[in-house]
Amino acid sequence: MHFIDETTSNGVIERSFQLGDVTGVLWSPQTDADNRPLVLMGHGGGLHKRFPGLVARGLHYVTECDFHVAAIDAPGHGDRPRNAEDKNWVAELRGAREAGKPIDTVVATYNASLAERAVPEWRATLDALQAIPGFGTGPVGYTGMTLATTIGIPLAAAEPRITAAIFGGAMAFDALLESARRVTIPIQFLLPWDDAEISREAGLQLYDAFASAEKTLHANPGDHRHVPWFETEDSLRFLRRHLRPAVAAE
Amino acid sequence: MHFIDETTSNGVIERSFQLGDVTGVLWSPQTDADNRPLVLMGHGGGLHKRFPGLVARGLHYVTECDFHVAAIDAPGHGDRPRNAEDKNWVAELRGAREAGKPIDTVVATYNASLAERAVPEWRATLDALQAIPGFGTGPVGYTGMTLATTIGIPLAAAEPRITAAIFGGAMAFDALLESARRVTIPIQFLLPWDDAEISREAGLQLYDAFASAEKTLHANPGDHRHVPWFETEDSLRFLRRHLRPAVAAE
Repeated sequence: MHFIDETTSNGVIERSFQLGDVTGVLWSPQTDADNRPLVLMGHGGGLHKRFPGLVARGLHYVTECDFHVAAIDAPGHGDRPRNAEDKNWVAELRGAREAGKPIDTVVATYNASLAERAVPEWRATLDALQAIPGFGTGPVGYTGMTLATTIGIPLAAAEPRITAAIFGGAMAFDALLESARRVTIPIQFLLPWDDAEISREAGLQLYDAFASAEKTLHANPGDHRHVPWFETEDSLRFLRRHLRPAVAAE
Repeated sequence: MHFIDETTSNGVIERSFQLGDVTGVLWSPQTDADNRPLVLMGHGGGLHKRFPGLVARGLHYVTECDFHVAAIDAPGHGDRPRNAEDKNWVAELRGAREAGKPIDTVVATYNASLAERAVPEWRATLDALQAIPGFGTGPVGYTGMTLATTIGIPLAAAEPRITAAIFGGAMAFDALLESARRVTIPIQFLLPWDDAEISREAGLQLYDAFASAEKTLHANPGDHRHVPWFETEDSLRFLRRHLRPAVAAE
């Protein structure tokens, strides 16, 4: 893992990094402590690791909870070039949207391919982060909706270091449902109740599939672009409860 | 309103009251202040105003938020005698349960009748509480699942003093859905994901029916008897946000 730059503001250290092809950012509290909890944050399709909504939530987690927060660009997103196949899917997706046709199939195929590549990238990122001197091996959470859920579910199924996750607003397809059935960690699932592109039923089906004993579904009116801020506060409480139980109980 | 007794423990004043036929209990913080928020708490079918789960939540609201909390027995519940018609419904309900037959229709009919009687009782109780010297007319919330939701939805549709409510786990029938469509206040809705007697679909249908701009659905595994305690904490935050916004923002 190679750090490209480091800046500090409002008590948060921001470091851009590169790990092989993967471009990422790490936000950390300025105060020293080993084995802090780490939250991995994914971004939605067509977005990137510094999408304003992600940055706002990430900085909130660092300043409120002293978590580390790491975000990486998905394959072909942000600072990473798109390969020929991805370009075809994006063109197909745009074509379907413009023609007012359903996008489910192309999104499912495209996102499944992105997830297959992103899962090992996240695991390598986690290895590299925990190898930073003084970083330690604290509890790890994951959060992200839409594409970040399509990536996060197989990641959580494969990666035992992740012990709590927030997902939501994703299309349900067989491989994803199959991964969800292997997830046993506590889950908070955000369901946009009125999303033109992601059906309510898909969200309910995904939530139902998790094998977790603790799983909570939070539905709110609107689409996945309009999750109310009180859900961010609640996500933080969920993560604190599972990643820093001693502090949450105070 | 006639107070029957008054005891104080752990900083909470408990007063049993009678208002006409209605038997109730009021929990208040020991510290003085006019116009405190008041939370009305309903109980489930076959239970009563001092059901342990209700008492635990009610005392928690008083001690954590300095709310008043009032609970009354539904018609034919707790300290109130059952009339002949109610006795028939209860016998029918027990018979259906023992025979392993669906209970939806009898519960819907019985609960609709209880709601029709309970709504004016709650409104009269609210009038009487607000007439207590020094009680004032602070914001009013309502909370309760199953029967308490069947009563609470038409109550919230009829009573403008109620400005936030927590409902959940109830059967959906036409009159109840009709009332829900007239509810516009912020709602938190608790959906037991695996309830043998109350279908998931009924909960989703009720949640969908509310006209409220802010309405959040919280689903959790298990039945309506096993709502996790973190939902009580979250209910409290919801009520604080809407009934004591100045404090919630601190």
